[in-house]
Amino acid sequence: MTIAEQIRKIARDARQASHVMARLSSGAKNGLLLAMADALVASTSMLVEENRKDLTAGEQKGLSSAMLDRLMLDESRVRAMADGLREVAALPDPVGEVTRMWKRPNDLQVGKMRIPLGVIGIIYEARPNVTADAAALCLKAGNGVILRGGSEAIHSNLAIARILQAEMDKAGIPTAALTVVPFAEREGVLELLKQEECIDLIIPRGGESLIRFVVEHSKIPVIKHYKGVCHVFVDASADFDMAERIIVNAKTQRPGVCNALETILIHKDVAETFIPRIAATLTGLKVELRGDDCFRQFASQAKPATEEDWHAEYLELILAARVVDDLDEAIDHINRYGSLHTEAIVTRDYATSQRFIREVNSSCVLINASTRFADGNQLGLGAEIGISTTKLHSFGPMGLEDLTTTKFIVYGDGQVRT
Amino acid sequence: MTIAEQIRKIARDARQASHVMARLSSGAKNGLLLAMADALVASTSMLVEENRKDLTAGEQKGLSSAMLDRLMLDESRVRAMADGLREVAALPDPVGEVTRMWKRPNDLQVGKMRIPLGVIGIIYEARPNVTADAAALCLKAGNGVILRGGSEAIHSNLAIARILQAEMDKAGIPTAALTVVPFAEREGVLELLKQEECIDLIIPRGGESLIRFVVEHSKIPVIKHYKGVCHVFVDASADFDMAERIIVNAKTQRPGVCNALETILIHKDVAETFIPRIAATLTGLKVELRGDDCFRQFASQAKPATEEDWHAEYLELILAARVVDDLDEAIDHINRYGSLHTEAIVTRDYATSQRFIREVNSSCVLINASTRFADGNQLGLGAEIGISTTKLHSFGPMGLEDLTTTKFIVYGDGQVRT
Repeated sequence: MTIAEQIRKIARDARQASHVMARLSSGAKNGLLLAMADALVASTSMLVEENRKDLTAGEQKGLSSAMLDRLMLDESRVRAMADGLREVAALPDPVGEVTRMWKRPNDLQVGKMRIPLGVIGIIYEARPNVTADAAALCLKAGNGVILRGGSEAIHSNLAIARILQAEMDKAGIPTAALTVVPFAEREGVLELLKQEECIDLIIPRGGESLIRFVVEHSKIPVIKHYKGVCHVFVDASADFDMAERIIVNAKTQRPGVCNALETILIHKDVAETFIPRIAATLTGLKVELRGDDCFRQFASQAKPATEEDWHAEYLELILAARVVDDLDEAIDHINRYGSLHTEAIVTRDYATSQRFIREVNSSCVLINASTRFADGNQLGLGAEIGISTTKLHSFGPMGLEDLTTTKFIVYGDGQVRT
Repeated sequence: MTIAEQIRKIARDARQASHVMARLSSGAKNGLLLAMADALVASTSMLVEENRKDLTAGEQKGLSSAMLDRLMLDESRVRAMADGLREVAALPDPVGEVTRMWKRPNDLQVGKMRIPLGVIGIIYEARPNVTADAAALCLKAGNGVILRGGSEAIHSNLAIARILQAEMDKAGIPTAALTVVPFAEREGVLELLKQEECIDLIIPRGGESLIRFVVEHSKIPVIKHYKGVCHVFVDASADFDMAERIIVNAKTQRPGVCNALETILIHKDVAETFIPRIAATLTGLKVELRGDDCFRQFASQAKPATEEDWHAEYLELILAARVVDDLDEAIDHINRYGSLHTEAIVTRDYATSQRFIREVNSSCVLINASTRFADGNQLGLGAEIGISTTKLHSFGPMGLEDLTTTKFIVYGDGQVRT
């Protein structure tokens, strides 16, 4: 079989197997995930051995030490992977939940019931733990899943898949519901992205170039997440201690992630009092500041900000800063330069807080809290399959529920339409 | 400006205006819709005159009389259009609804709030009433809308848009939030489908070829609805009177629509008793039957069904019929040949009814009711913007809520991440 034929067969078989997954009881799915977790731990030495093949090939290819570290599996990482599966097993099953039910004048009872999406394709880069994580979430939500990891991790990914599939087989569940694409050629990805009859959703996990490649070539809906240009607006009524604590946390606690802060907006009424203080603190923490003219008037160490700075996702210790006249100007700035990811306000004013939370339409909007909470685990989703900065289907961090849809269910007693 | 430049400007302006729409109060939106309704009625003679230009051009182009009838506006149709706007005004506003709220261990209150999608593009065919209907639903949900109707209706559509826009202008709302594309060239549609930065969703309304064209060329997510191959399964325990009433209604009440019945599946235990009866009734109603061998054993008037018949959306008085061994075979048939639209079971058995409603994953699944209820109005959504047979974002008939998404909202008192 050619690569294209193999991919088409994988997709068709996954569609078929997804019908079985959709009907599994919660108990059967949880039992499967727990057995998979045990099997991963029991196979640690085999996994580490297969992982060594990837590491050796990676060293020969000259991967950076950061890349090699992300690729590496050892006993504690295998245990963490198994614990991840156990956590997914412990989450409530979204499938079958009736989210609402109402009655029509003709006595029909109409409701909406959660069902699996069907088959989900995940396209990701070097971390082999994604293989187990993503598989667990997709299966728990009753879906079939096709995983296409980075070529650097192919021995590790295939080994993980073999272990998980063996448990499916023991439980009488068709293993086609979980496939790791067994070859690294880009042709395979392109063919996968054409299987719109058999795959319902593609989730790319990785850098912007991977996501753009997938969006460009996919005939299947894609959940996108390009970047996070997150803002904190310090209102005139802000508690300065709180504002400082939130800005420092959002900028410096982990600067390289998408929910880190990139731009602060300061109300003009507190420019003179708050800017010298926050600028000194941030400079002390080695954060480079890039401000507009007004900001620089009160923070001479700041470099001048250019138009590019308002668009920038630095992912490092650089912060853009601007003084705004009022809430409206802050919201306009966010609408113009934001990436629909996460924005926070620091305020003591009730009306301002309510306007901000209503009128800022990013995927996560916070009052008096750090942008770093924009994360599936932190928000209480239990686990995160990805994050969406486009509004269709899901917006923001995605959990198990986002791997489902709802169908209409209707209970009648013989009604016909007149 | 070239056509492409004009389209890009329309899309950019709509994006800008959508921020204003998103912030409008429910009262302002409802007042606008009521004023629009009054204005349509007051402009009846102008509308009829503009419509006459389309009718004359249509006659010259040789449109069928059915097409000309769909195109035609008279006093009563304008009144119906205005009533449609008033009905949308009366619906609850989905924007701002907090669908859930929960508390995290660090006392953050986390919730999900409904917000508008942003800008919606509607691409449709000859009926000018869609212009007012679709505009009203999109605006009520706080969105900007770009309408691209059929070239046959362009004078009527532009006249309707002028009337609606005049009311927006009076209310101080930017008219760019509602645009009818003012030219008929296909180049305009192609350019529209590329504006993924400014348009969030495309809804095509029309025949399968229009929808396939849009899906093929769109970079923007599209809500798809290809066809409805709807099934009724008559279980061994069915009440025959009810089964007959439901089948006759689903097949004959309005055969040309997507929720009409196309295939019946009969449990083998009642083949001998039920088939002669239902076949005689349907034949009496001039329904052509196409059955498998077993069905034809009890209904000699039926023609033999081919593989194609199981896939067919007849949209006329033809019905495919098959005898199945049990519920599992019925579900397998639906999974294999169905279009994920609408399926019904007729049964008196509790366990069978529950299995059918859980395991059949079409967008609308009914127990003991006609498939003809798969419709936004009949299900109680208040109004229908379209119907989706793909699972992403919305599945099944779509109402106002489906023109929104949800953002995460977080109420804190200074929390930072550790």
